[in-house]
Amino acid sequence: MHKIALLGAGFIGRFYAMSLLKYRGRDEVKIVCDSLPGQAEKFADEFGIPRWTEEMEKAVRDPEVDTVIIGIPNHLHKKAALLAAQAGKAVLCTKPLGLNGPEALEMLAAVEKAGVFHGYLEDLVYTPKTLKALAATQKGALGKVLWARSRETHGGPHSDWFWNKELSGGGAIVDMGCHCIEIARDFIGKGIRPAEVTCWADTQVHPIEAEDHAVGLVRYENGALGQFEVSWTFRGGMDLRDEVSGTEGTIWLNHWLRTGFEMFTGVGQGGYVAEKAEGDTGWLFPVGDEDGSLGYVEMFLDMFNTMDKGIQPMETFYDGYVVNCVIDASYKAARTKKWEPVEIEEWRGEKVIAEQSGLKDYDAAHFLVKEERMPDGMLKVILKDKQTGKISQKFQ
Amino acid sequence: MHKIALLGAGFIGRFYAMSLLKYRGRDEVKIVCDSLPGQAEKFADEFGIPRWTEEMEKAVRDPEVDTVIIGIPNHLHKKAALLAAQAGKAVLCTKPLGLNGPEALEMLAAVEKAGVFHGYLEDLVYTPKTLKALAATQKGALGKVLWARSRETHGGPHSDWFWNKELSGGGAIVDMGCHCIEIARDFIGKGIRPAEVTCWADTQVHPIEAEDHAVGLVRYENGALGQFEVSWTFRGGMDLRDEVSGTEGTIWLNHWLRTGFEMFTGVGQGGYVAEKAEGDTGWLFPVGDEDGSLGYVEMFLDMFNTMDKGIQPMETFYDGYVVNCVIDASYKAARTKKWEPVEIEEWRGEKVIAEQSGLKDYDAAHFLVKEERMPDGMLKVILKDKQTGKISQKFQ
Amino acid sequence: MHKIALLGAGFIGRFYAMSLLKYRGRDEVKIVCDSLPGQAEKFADEFGIPRWTEEMEKAVRDPEVDTVIIGIPNHLHKKAALLAAQAGKAVLCTKPLGLNGPEALEMLAAVEKAGVFHGYLEDLVYTPKTLKALAATQKGALGKVLWARSRETHGGPHSDWFWNKELSGGGAIVDMGCHCIEIARDFIGKGIRPAEVTCWADTQVHPIEAEDHAVGLVRYENGALGQFEVSWTFRGGMDLRDEVSGTEGTIWLNHWLRTGFEMFTGVGQGGYVAEKAEGDTGWLFPVGDEDGSLGYVEMFLDMFNTMDKGIQPMETFYDGYVVNCVIDASYKAARTKKWEPVEIEEWRGEKVIAEQSGLKDYDAAHFLVKEERMPDGMLKVILKDKQTGKISQKFQ
Amino acid sequence: MHKIALLGAGFIGRFYAMSLLKYRGRDEVKIVCDSLPGQAEKFADEFGIPRWTEEMEKAVRDPEVDTVIIGIPNHLHKKAALLAAQAGKAVLCTKPLGLNGPEALEMLAAVEKAGVFHGYLEDLVYTPKTLKALAATQKGALGKVLWARSRETHGGPHSDWFWNKELSGGGAIVDMGCHCIEIARDFIGKGIRPAEVTCWADTQVHPIEAEDHAVGLVRYENGALGQFEVSWTFRGGMDLRDEVSGTEGTIWLNHWLRTGFEMFTGVGQGGYVAEKAEGDTGWLFPVGDEDGSLGYVEMFLDMFNTMDKGIQPMETFYDGYVVNCVIDASYKAARTKKWEPVEIEEWRGEKVIAEQSGLKDYDAAHFLVKEERMPDGMLKVILKDKQTGKISQKFQ
Repeated sequence: MHKIALLGAGFIGRFYAMSLLKYRGRDEVKIVCDSLPGQAEKFADEFGIPRWTEEMEKAVRDPEVDTVIIGIPNHLHKKAALLAAQAGKAVLCTKPLGLNGPEALEMLAAVEKAGVFHGYLEDLVYTPKTLKALAATQKGALGKVLWARSRETHGGPHSDWFWNKELSGGGAIVDMGCHCIEIARDFIGKGIRPAEVTCWADTQVHPIEAEDHAVGLVRYENGALGQFEVSWTFRGGMDLRDEVSGTEGTIWLNHWLRTGFEMFTGVGQGGYVAEKAEGDTGWLFPVGDEDGSLGYVEMFLDMFNTMDKGIQPMETFYDGYVVNCVIDASYKAARTKKWEPVEIEEWRGEKVIAEQSGLKDYDAAHFLVKEERMPDGMLKVILKDKQTGKISQKFQ
Repeated sequence: MHKIALLGAGFIGRFYAMSLLKYRGRDEVKIVCDSLPGQAEKFADEFGIPRWTEEMEKAVRDPEVDTVIIGIPNHLHKKAALLAAQAGKAVLCTKPLGLNGPEALEMLAAVEKAGVFHGYLEDLVYTPKTLKALAATQKGALGKVLWARSRETHGGPHSDWFWNKELSGGGAIVDMGCHCIEIARDFIGKGIRPAEVTCWADTQVHPIEAEDHAVGLVRYENGALGQFEVSWTFRGGMDLRDEVSGTEGTIWLNHWLRTGFEMFTGVGQGGYVAEKAEGDTGWLFPVGDEDGSLGYVEMFLDMFNTMDKGIQPMETFYDGYVVNCVIDASYKAARTKKWEPVEIEEWRGEKVIAEQSGLKDYDAAHFLVKEERMPDGMLKVILKDKQTGKISQKFQ
Repeated sequence: MHKIALLGAGFIGRFYAMSLLKYRGRDEVKIVCDSLPGQAEKFADEFGIPRWTEEMEKAVRDPEVDTVIIGIPNHLHKKAALLAAQAGKAVLCTKPLGLNGPEALEMLAAVEKAGVFHGYLEDLVYTPKTLKALAATQKGALGKVLWARSRETHGGPHSDWFWNKELSGGGAIVDMGCHCIEIARDFIGKGIRPAEVTCWADTQVHPIEAEDHAVGLVRYENGALGQFEVSWTFRGGMDLRDEVSGTEGTIWLNHWLRTGFEMFTGVGQGGYVAEKAEGDTGWLFPVGDEDGSLGYVEMFLDMFNTMDKGIQPMETFYDGYVVNCVIDASYKAARTKKWEPVEIEEWRGEKVIAEQSGLKDYDAAHFLVKEERMPDGMLKVILKDKQTGKISQKFQ
Repeated sequence: MHKIALLGAGFIGRFYAMSLLKYRGRDEVKIVCDSLPGQAEKFADEFGIPRWTEEMEKAVRDPEVDTVIIGIPNHLHKKAALLAAQAGKAVLCTKPLGLNGPEALEMLAAVEKAGVFHGYLEDLVYTPKTLKALAATQKGALGKVLWARSRETHGGPHSDWFWNKELSGGGAIVDMGCHCIEIARDFIGKGIRPAEVTCWADTQVHPIEAEDHAVGLVRYENGALGQFEVSWTFRGGMDLRDEVSGTEGTIWLNHWLRTGFEMFTGVGQGGYVAEKAEGDTGWLFPVGDEDGSLGYVEMFLDMFNTMDKGIQPMETFYDGYVVNCVIDASYKAARTKKWEPVEIEEWRGEKVIAEQSGLKDYDAAHFLVKEERMPDGMLKVILKDKQTGKISQKFQ
């Protein structure tokens, strides 16, 4: 049973509070903090939180509190995390961890030096679909993962500070690319080093400095490719999908716009449909359990369950640091127009990637290139001669 | 915070325990009971439940317990509910409430006479999708509901007693029809009386006495139609879908086989895919959050939250009784090959159904029959003369 | 190469002309007829048809013409078919064949007596999806077909005469039920006699005499169930779906609203989206090849190819007659509130339906009721003792 | 009415013949040619083609023939096209046009110099879905196109020569990238110059020299991004999807694996399911009209209809040349690990791309950054001060 200080009473704070308080749970938010006058008080009132403040230090140092949840703008993450580490409290930080790799590294060093529990609140790897898909992948259902595409696009974030590069650290890449990068990394394997990145980023629509649309390709040391697609220019709601291809299988996840709930209404229903929905008449695609589908519920379960067990959660500050490094390389590649290496100061994963041979024997003299059932029902095999390299085909 | 006696350590008991215990919740299962030797002990051990027994009375009368959850075969529901009422405990009963209407009425009378909290564990109206769809419907998104189809089909239930008519009260209708009937009733409106039923039921495949496939049509007093489709003969997994049509809109819910998680695997993953899945290679459609998607989580939240507030839950024994009455009429109609009235001894809903006119004026002299955009882009209207009744069309 | 007289220059005539003329084909429409002044001339002009007339006789007796296509309101089908038979021309008639069974029987007798080629233009059994699904079913992919649901619902037909019971023969059942009945019959098997029907029909929304919404259940002699769902009250476009369940498999066809083309537009595109679409902004679901997807293209290919080969097409006047008989029984059942027999004067299919046993041996002493993989990975089998009938379970 | 020489009696030749001959059409294949002994004869026999040969020259110079269709391996395209141009015949060439840009340019020069009709058989831009989506896009339904992803992946091509770089010109990029590049180009606008490319390409699985998996990003001069994803390593069938995002809308096309035909079978159907399907039991996703869905039918209609009208088809050798140039840049970029310019010798599209401003006024002093409906039902707007650039938010 934990006592929580929640920093931030905005959009993400609301999702956190709903996820934490909904399930008749044992853990309690004891104090909420927001620097915007009146915001914290109103939030405390709504969610039945006993105390509120406008001062971050006060919340972090609240004597009853053992855990600090950081749900404030990106440029304040470091300050908050350092305060929490200093106070010896467990600290859970919203994505992205830092504004960039060096900042994230400083945060990692601080929590590790202080010896406090640290969790990286990467909610989208915690959706029930993603967890189940990861489990299947780890059990071998896909064979070796070759490619992982993760996509998050919508019409842009909710709060003004996101649109200001100084406060957020960037545009769509830093806002949503962090999710997509970590999702792909989870499927490919956390022990596999992300090696280099090429990236397209542009400001196509909005009157802002940062990119509102980007696509990046991340090559991992074992030859797998992670692909992130992020946009604040998307029309039609929020597109939240992952696709994973392996030597033995494929996974497609759709987290938002096509989840088995379809509604047509000619009159609307007077209000909110789903996060980032556009319009409230015509064909709509609401999501049944929004908090759960975004991973918030399972994320906090993992955080508090591992905290109780004295082990690390699935996502730590180290993971947040790696993600920041990939983001840094993405921005650099978008500028230099070249593949850029991912600079990770302290790589804790696998050091040597074993070469893997994909060669399948057909018989002693041939490799199998492929086999396929043809429209006339026959089975065609394509072979490569092991000696000559010559490719041939035959029907069976 | 409640202390629970769980009766039944089988398939449904497992889903209940997982839903109750997963979310770091305040409510606790204090004793589990199962008459099958060894079953309760093993279950208690697995879920960390302090006490177990093979005797129902002992579990119900456990002094620490304030709530009894009935998760045992249908023919034992009445006995358990009466015991719990007698002991003054809150009682939550798995669907169907009784083996038939009279039995359900007896159970209802018992809990009401004892003045205890009573909840009908109709999980499928509690899925997050269904709750949201019901809320949209109640806010008017569909206009007046005209038709509601609810379908549950799979390859048959898990335990032997389901297949024995004496123990279960029937076949697929009593097993799954109860879900479908109540879902349709929730969309059409709980205040609207189900008037009469026609039903087809047959034993198409299995070596059993009861029906393994049935379709029923339930006419409500306001003219709406509920349609249930249940089968133990379905191939391809578990098909769990609802469709609702109203004057202003449409809702389609797919709870299981198409929820946005699609996986192809050539090798399988060595184990369980999802409830009632067939096979573990090829294209598979796992469900992210099975417990949540089946409604168990929200169902218990509603039960305990309303218990704490001293109000009735969304589904009470009265609802279970109405469902049993519709099932009874369905079995009778399947035998008599006629529409049969639904006999509800004590109707607590709306007594008089206001006639509703669907007539829309086009102008002073005409009703509008329909309007439609044609392939050439023109708008065609079809009109009915208010005086002569003559139907005509024109382009606009 | 055929010379065609097309009777009817309305909505269906347009679909026919587009299907016949699109593919650089050899068959030609030589004359078009429509009694509405100006309509035929305009149509002839648009499609490059050399002659037009307002008189049916003139078109049918056109000396160059060898084939008459009937695309006029239902109450004129008989007159046109009899004229064509008299003139010794091949005759292809739009659904439904007659206003009712006796009328259809008269038409059937006329074409058979005259010895002319006769085709029943039941386009929806000719969609490429349906043809392929039927082929798979006939090859055994579903085992024995147990249940076939066919659904067609939308906001109501295009022309005024449909809404007038005297001209159309009824409401949604006669308009669309004919499709659904024949589709189910094709999957269950044309040789299997439709035995009896129960039916709900109501006028829920429109100011008309005929039903605008109906659901019917058709029991076939071999125990299979056909289910038709038709409505002129549906919101959201045109819902055109079939579902078929068999002992070994399942087929789901979606012909219209979910075919893999999804479009969101905030601004619309100034015009037609797809047949019976509602609105032109928001999420839209256009159909790529409308004519093909509705079966018109394959239908005419089959008609003219079989005509050239001197054999019967897939759908003849006899099929149209059987469908009319099922419709008649449906209307009667809706009135009498009982299952009503399907009265077919001359049954040409299988006379004796062999009893089929669905019993599967588990071992010498037991039938297998079912087997299922459980969440813990074990395989559970449920058995029935051949001697005692006792049902039991065990894990393997 | 045209007389055709078909070069190639392999997999693609079969699709062509089926598309050309199915619809009782006027155009006729008069001679078929294949260098593999016996292949042409067998093919001619199957499709009722009067003449066959093993010598390309003989087929091209057949005096009755006015049109040559090239359906042979890539390295023979140039020779065949030059022969046809020399003979003054119309020439239709399978994708890719040449092995590379210079070869394609030579072919383009030859047909233009000879003044013959030339069509580039890029079937996938001719699918009914794509044609309708392009029409909607051109009518403005998406606003300005910002991004177009086109994806074709499967388990690898049917014939041995595809796997041999010398004969095919490359791997998955040259085989399928040509489709994806042209589809994106069609959505973005054929007049917009493709400017530069970054590309990842690898041989992940097969024992071949060429790439079996690649992803490329093509930046167009107006700022739009085309994205191609091609793979011979995909598991689960053939994944053929396009996604297009614009300032006002979104289009998603699924051409193969999810088109509204879903089948589960426990027993299979003894044969072919659909092109590149894997396995024939479990959940399968057949395609109703394969030839039509791959665009072959509409492609040949356009070719012969435009030929008859004396105008250019939608896809000409010039388009094939541009695609080859993009492919060349992709291969170069994959090697140099930099964005590489697309070298088009003779650009015939728009020379100057007008800058487009995406700025929307909110009021005199502010640009609108975004507006969104929040969960509490309020409308939030985010604004940018035109003078100061400051970003702020308010609720309405």
